[in-house]
Amino acid sequence: MRTLAKTKRLVKKVKANGKTIGFVPTMGYLHEGHLSLVRIARRKSQFVVVSIFVNPAQFSPHEDLAKYPRDMKRDVALLRKEKVDLIFCPSVNEIYPPDYKTYVYVKKLNRLMCGASRPRHFQGVTTVILNLFNIVKPDIAVFGAKDYQQGVIIKCMTRNLNLDIKIIIGKIIREKDGLALSSRNIYLSPRQRKNATILYQALRRIRYDFRQGFSDPRRAKTMMRQMIEKKNGRINYIAVVNKNTLSPVKKLGAGTLIALAVFFGKTRLIDNTIL
Amino acid sequence: MRTLAKTKRLVKKVKANGKTIGFVPTMGYLHEGHLSLVRIARRKSQFVVVSIFVNPAQFSPHEDLAKYPRDMKRDVALLRKEKVDLIFCPSVNEIYPPDYKTYVYVKKLNRLMCGASRPRHFQGVTTVILNLFNIVKPDIAVFGAKDYQQGVIIKCMTRNLNLDIKIIIGKIIREKDGLALSSRNIYLSPRQRKNATILYQALRRIRYDFRQGFSDPRRAKTMMRQMIEKKNGRINYIAVVNKNTLSPVKKLGAGTLIALAVFFGKTRLIDNTIL
Repeated sequence: MRTLAKTKRLVKKVKANGKTIGFVPTMGYLHEGHLSLVRIARRKSQFVVVSIFVNPAQFSPHEDLAKYPRDMKRDVALLRKEKVDLIFCPSVNEIYPPDYKTYVYVKKLNRLMCGASRPRHFQGVTTVILNLFNIVKPDIAVFGAKDYQQGVIIKCMTRNLNLDIKIIIGKIIREKDGLALSSRNIYLSPRQRKNATILYQALRRIRYDFRQGFSDPRRAKTMMRQMIEKKNGRINYIAVVNKNTLSPVKKLGAGTLIALAVFFGKTRLIDNTIL
Repeated sequence: MRTLAKTKRLVKKVKANGKTIGFVPTMGYLHEGHLSLVRIARRKSQFVVVSIFVNPAQFSPHEDLAKYPRDMKRDVALLRKEKVDLIFCPSVNEIYPPDYKTYVYVKKLNRLMCGASRPRHFQGVTTVILNLFNIVKPDIAVFGAKDYQQGVIIKCMTRNLNLDIKIIIGKIIREKDGLALSSRNIYLSPRQRKNATILYQALRRIRYDFRQGFSDPRRAKTMMRQMIEKKNGRINYIAVVNKNTLSPVKKLGAGTLIALAVFFGKTRLIDNTIL
C-alpha cells in the first residue's frame, strides 16, 4: 500500500532489474474472481501489482459510488496470501487532482450494451486504466471476463494507443449455483439472490439450444427475457453480438457473445457466455 | 524514416542502452521554428527523434488537410543537417488503422481560444501526441510556442496521465519583419504577407503600453482589433488570459498571455506574447 510517488519509484526499480510486471486493477472488495486474475498475473509475470481504487469517474451521479462495498483490511490479507508484490491503493486526489481534465474514450464500443444506459461509464474506465497503466507500467494486465465489453474496449485502447501491454481476460468465476461472483452480490436480498441464478440458467439454456441447432438471435433474446422476468429480473439489455466487434449477429455461431444486464431490485448484475 | 514496427524496435534498443530520448513532433514543411526545437532536443537529450505526420484528426472537414504543404525530401535534408537520430514518418494507416476508435481530450482547455472555432482540433492533437509518445517513449518532448494553447493542453495531459515526459516549450521564431514563422505563411499573397506583420506589431504595442502602466484587457483587445482590421485582418479571436489556466484576466500583469488568431484571406495565422 503505497502512495503514487513511492509506487512510481518502486516500479522504476523493478523495471531496471528487468523483471516483467503483471497488473490486476480492481475496485477492491475482492472475491475469488479477482483472485483468479491475480493467480494468472502471478503465473505470467515476475512482479505482481494489484490496484484497489473505487473509480469515481466510472459511476454516474445516481449510481452506487458512495455505498460501493469496501473492506481494505480483508483485501490486503487476501492479496498477501497470493504473494502479490505491490498493492497500490491511490487516493482519489492522487488520480484525479483538483485540476484534472484529461479523458480517454473508445468511440462506438463505449455506447453499446452497458454503455447505452451508462453513457460515461466506459470513458471513466478507460481513463483510469490508462492512468494506472502509465503508473504501473505493466507488461501484462489481467481483467475479468464478467464485464466482457470492458475487456474488448481496453484491448482496443491498448492496441490503438500503441501501449506495449498484453491484455489477458480471465474466466468468470461462479458460485456453486451458477451466479457469477460480483462485489455487488451482497446488495441482494435472500430472495433476489435466489432469483438471480436465473441469469446463468438462461445463458446455459441458449448455449444448450445452440448445440442442438438453434440459431435465431431474436428468439434467443425472447426466451431469456421470459425466463428472467418470471424471476422478477428487470432487464437492462440482452445482447447477442460478435465477441470482437460487439455488433449484433444475424445468426448464432461459434464466437457469438450472449451478454446481459439485469436488475434485481436496485442491484444491476451482468453476466455473459460465448458460444 | 522508419515504419512503426521498426521505430518501436529501435526505441527499445535505445532505451536498453540507457540513452535519453528527446522528441519533436511536427507536421513537416519545416522552418527555422521547428529547427530551433530540434536544437533544444539535441542539447537536452542523447537520442533525438523528429516525427513528420500531417495529422488528419486535428483538421476539420472544411480545413486545409489536403493542401497542407508537404516537402519530405527537403525536411529530411534539413533534419540530417541537425544530426537527428531518427526521423519517424508514419503513414496515416499506421497511426489510424481502419478500426481506430480511441481519443483523448483535455476538457475545458480544449474549448477556449483556438478550440472555440476548431472544436475537434485539440482532441486530434492530444490523441496523436499521446500515440506518438507511446511509440517514441521520450524523456523530453519539445513543442513550439506559437501554438501556446497546445503547449498548455499537452502539459496538462502529460501531468494528468502520469506520463514521465518533460514538456519543453521553445520560443517563437520570427521573420525579420516580425511575422511568426509558420508552414501556412506560404498561402499568403504578397499583400497579405505584408499586412500580416501587423499581428506582431499589435502584440508589441500592448507589451509596450503595459510597460508604461496600461492594464485594461478590454481596451487592449479593442486597440489590437482596430490595428489588425485596418490591415484587412479578419479576427478569429483575441485572448487576454492567464498563461497557465487560459482564463481571462481582469488586469494585465506579468504572466498574462495575449494570443490571437486572424484570417488574412483564407489563411488563419496565430501569434502570441507573454507580458
